[in-house]
Amino acid sequence: MSNPFFKNHGPFKFSDIVKSLSLVIDKLQNDKEIHDIKDLASSTENDITFLHSKKYIAAAKNTKASFCLTTQTLKSELPASCLPLVVENVLVSTSKVTSIFYPDSIVDDFDKSVTLINDTKFKDQVNFGKNVLIGHNVSIGSNCKIGHNTIIEKNVFIGNNCSIGSNNIIRNSLIKNNVKILDNCVIGKHGFGFFPIKDKNLRYPHIGTVLIEDNCEIGAGATIDRGSMSNTIIGKNTYLDNQIHIAHNVKIGENTIIAGQVGIAGSSVIGKNVKIGGQAGISGHLKIGNNVEIAGGSGVIRSIPDNSKVMGYPAKNIKEFLRDNR
Amino acid sequence: MSNPFFKNHGPFKFSDIVKSLSLVIDKLQNDKEIHDIKDLASSTENDITFLHSKKYIAAAKNTKASFCLTTQTLKSELPASCLPLVVENVLVSTSKVTSIFYPDSIVDDFDKSVTLINDTKFKDQVNFGKNVLIGHNVSIGSNCKIGHNTIIEKNVFIGNNCSIGSNNIIRNSLIKNNVKILDNCVIGKHGFGFFPIKDKNLRYPHIGTVLIEDNCEIGAGATIDRGSMSNTIIGKNTYLDNQIHIAHNVKIGENTIIAGQVGIAGSSVIGKNVKIGGQAGISGHLKIGNNVEIAGGSGVIRSIPDNSKVMGYPAKNIKEFLRDNR
Amino acid sequence: MSNPFFKNHGPFKFSDIVKSLSLVIDKLQNDKEIHDIKDLASSTENDITFLHSKKYIAAAKNTKASFCLTTQTLKSELPASCLPLVVENVLVSTSKVTSIFYPDSIVDDFDKSVTLINDTKFKDQVNFGKNVLIGHNVSIGSNCKIGHNTIIEKNVFIGNNCSIGSNNIIRNSLIKNNVKILDNCVIGKHGFGFFPIKDKNLRYPHIGTVLIEDNCEIGAGATIDRGSMSNTIIGKNTYLDNQIHIAHNVKIGENTIIAGQVGIAGSSVIGKNVKIGGQAGISGHLKIGNNVEIAGGSGVIRSIPDNSKVMGYPAKNIKEFLRDNR
Repeated sequence: MSNPFFKNHGPFKFSDIVKSLSLVIDKLQNDKEIHDIKDLASSTENDITFLHSKKYIAAAKNTKASFCLTTQTLKSELPASCLPLVVENVLVSTSKVTSIFYPDSIVDDFDKSVTLINDTKFKDQVNFGKNVLIGHNVSIGSNCKIGHNTIIEKNVFIGNNCSIGSNNIIRNSLIKNNVKILDNCVIGKHGFGFFPIKDKNLRYPHIGTVLIEDNCEIGAGATIDRGSMSNTIIGKNTYLDNQIHIAHNVKIGENTIIAGQVGIAGSSVIGKNVKIGGQAGISGHLKIGNNVEIAGGSGVIRSIPDNSKVMGYPAKNIKEFLRDNR
Repeated sequence: MSNPFFKNHGPFKFSDIVKSLSLVIDKLQNDKEIHDIKDLASSTENDITFLHSKKYIAAAKNTKASFCLTTQTLKSELPASCLPLVVENVLVSTSKVTSIFYPDSIVDDFDKSVTLINDTKFKDQVNFGKNVLIGHNVSIGSNCKIGHNTIIEKNVFIGNNCSIGSNNIIRNSLIKNNVKILDNCVIGKHGFGFFPIKDKNLRYPHIGTVLIEDNCEIGAGATIDRGSMSNTIIGKNTYLDNQIHIAHNVKIGENTIIAGQVGIAGSSVIGKNVKIGGQAGISGHLKIGNNVEIAGGSGVIRSIPDNSKVMGYPAKNIKEFLRDNR
Repeated sequence: MSNPFFKNHGPFKFSDIVKSLSLVIDKLQNDKEIHDIKDLASSTENDITFLHSKKYIAAAKNTKASFCLTTQTLKSELPASCLPLVVENVLVSTSKVTSIFYPDSIVDDFDKSVTLINDTKFKDQVNFGKNVLIGHNVSIGSNCKIGHNTIIEKNVFIGNNCSIGSNNIIRNSLIKNNVKILDNCVIGKHGFGFFPIKDKNLRYPHIGTVLIEDNCEIGAGATIDRGSMSNTIIGKNTYLDNQIHIAHNVKIGENTIIAGQVGIAGSSVIGKNVKIGGQAGISGHLKIGNNVEIAGGSGVIRSIPDNSKVMGYPAKNIKEFLRDNR
């Protein structure tokens, strides 16, 4: 994923990475500089990668990374050019290393960088309300409106003809053209992603963004979290009603309609031309096909093929559900 | 519906209406002025109306309108005094014509008309917090409180003894006496009503209001949308808990109690003395009778007669549900 | 419950209490001063108490209170040292008397006491955003951040290393160390507790607080209501995702994880190490044991023993549910 917003603080020496993980390495053959942390497939020889599951053995065999966080069992799958770093919990260590490269992606404190829009270059270009705040690295296209008390925090690109209401908080987001966002939304904060650890959970990095395509509408009170290692995406001309929650890494296709109070859990992928009724919930890591209709109040816990109509909890074929629940 | 808030920009000449719909009329017999768009029954000879379903044939036969948007099939049902305008999609065309008469009812951009309350006539009359903004056409009765950062946008009438909390956004609403609204609510924005069109949906007008009767309480984080062609109504002494969504055209009776996170879809009518448990959802266009009790978490997809107690999804008689789900 | 926030306006003379309840007492033997209203067990001879159900007869027999609001049927259960006051509705009368002692606990109007943080002692001590407001009786520890437009209303104690985002409204709350609160939350307002009375419901007092223990995270858009006669508690290292509603008197144990849009109704007690999936709902007055897992979308209407995994509505054993709902 190309990442426009989170600054890579690398390179770091291999010995520094080793130290940060409290690892003991027998002999430090090669204290080369590491430029980035990437997945197995996209790593170059300057990168560190990670292998935590045998599902990824094929990719591991071909990785170009020079270093890999992995387990005792999996380390033999790596090529000779890749030095395995055996750690207790690969994902926790990956999280730690990612946060060394991208320290700004862990914590979502309020954005201290903002200033009143009246004191920015947008003063004469944007149609804005009272108390609008603008952070670092913000761009806004032509003919945009931004309502009262809205905070465009750092790292937000807004296209042309967008109407953003009042009391919104937006960061780390790409908003294309003709997008409308009502009021009281929180967009681009990190998702609910962490490693549960007794007495003090460990948050993992969120280096993704929220991408909202052309002609979308986002209702009042939405929360749309940015992705962790990929982006959260709302497809073209997709409309969201009020009080909707979209978790991190969710991807929604175009021309989709989502009614009030729906929640979509992390990393699920929703097709195009999908209709989701009010209060429906979709579990994480599912694939909902194109042209699917999900009745209001349904709880979807399995992937759904194209052109299906489902209802119930767990959601099943709507005719079957209604026949069984006269 | 008498409409206190949306200015009718008419009259328009018949030829202008025809042009805006990109229609070709064989011969323009009568380029009279049209004053308003109304339903079949309430139209006068100065109005244009619409007929999109055979359900309304009886009303069509008696309409006094001089013009009617309709289909090839239905046009013969109109009286000789009414000129049929055959269009591809009656509701889309009705929406277009309505937006010609009421252009302010389509778009809900932030209200640029607001000023700090300290600079208004309410300065000495209302008990207010910091950064309170007041729009055009607002009236506020005696002994009212308005909390910090709340935005009373245009077209809001507030009665006496009301307590409105902080961070609320209200427009196009009639709020009677002794009403309490907590914090972070969005009240009076347009509903989730539009015609789905590939790549660019078409919003239809919302010329209704939100009417909140005496002694109501609205919890934190509510979204209450104004009506499209009628009003959204919260009856006297009805209490709403936190995070409730009330869609457009919903009408709720008096002395009703609605617990947290309930959602009511568009145009449903809820009786009086109704109790709705937390997270219950009610589909659109239903009629829920008086004294009905709906258990928390229920999904109501059919109308419910007076005095019923229901539970489940789909909601059914509560005893039956509990017997079937031991 | 020790109460740090609500000022006891007593003592009041017995005759004043009698008058406020519109009671007629045959002969006023003893017009002593009453210092407080407490439950049967914790009352002293200076207090008034209440007995509304035969469930509490054992406690009634041993109460040290000099006065007791009760019914004709129950009054004989009280010791000779305690004068019964027979009233039509014990809980309504208890509410009335409580509101005489604690008048500030009924109404949650916006907090007029706030000032801009720049004008307070916190100016040099806290890392704060624009338009932050601080009310009376607020303390804030070291190394805290408070985001834009956040209103720390009266009666809030914040520990060290806390990060509070933007647009939050907090009152009557104890927030310990290393707590993170995202944006748009409303914390510490009264709960949805009142006596339904035709045309004008009667709110009862909420003299509790919200207590958030060390290392917690509260997602965007949360509403957490303070307790009525006890506290609402979020245990150590418990994480709440976005759009969660926690009602009054709820107590949640430590290391618990609650996903988006969950709602927990009043007075339920949740154990530690509990996992609750998105959109699940938990009815009021239940006990959820330790290490329980509740699947997303479930509706829990009965208490759940330790170490259970449940799913469905009503929630039952997860294996059973999935077997019955293939």
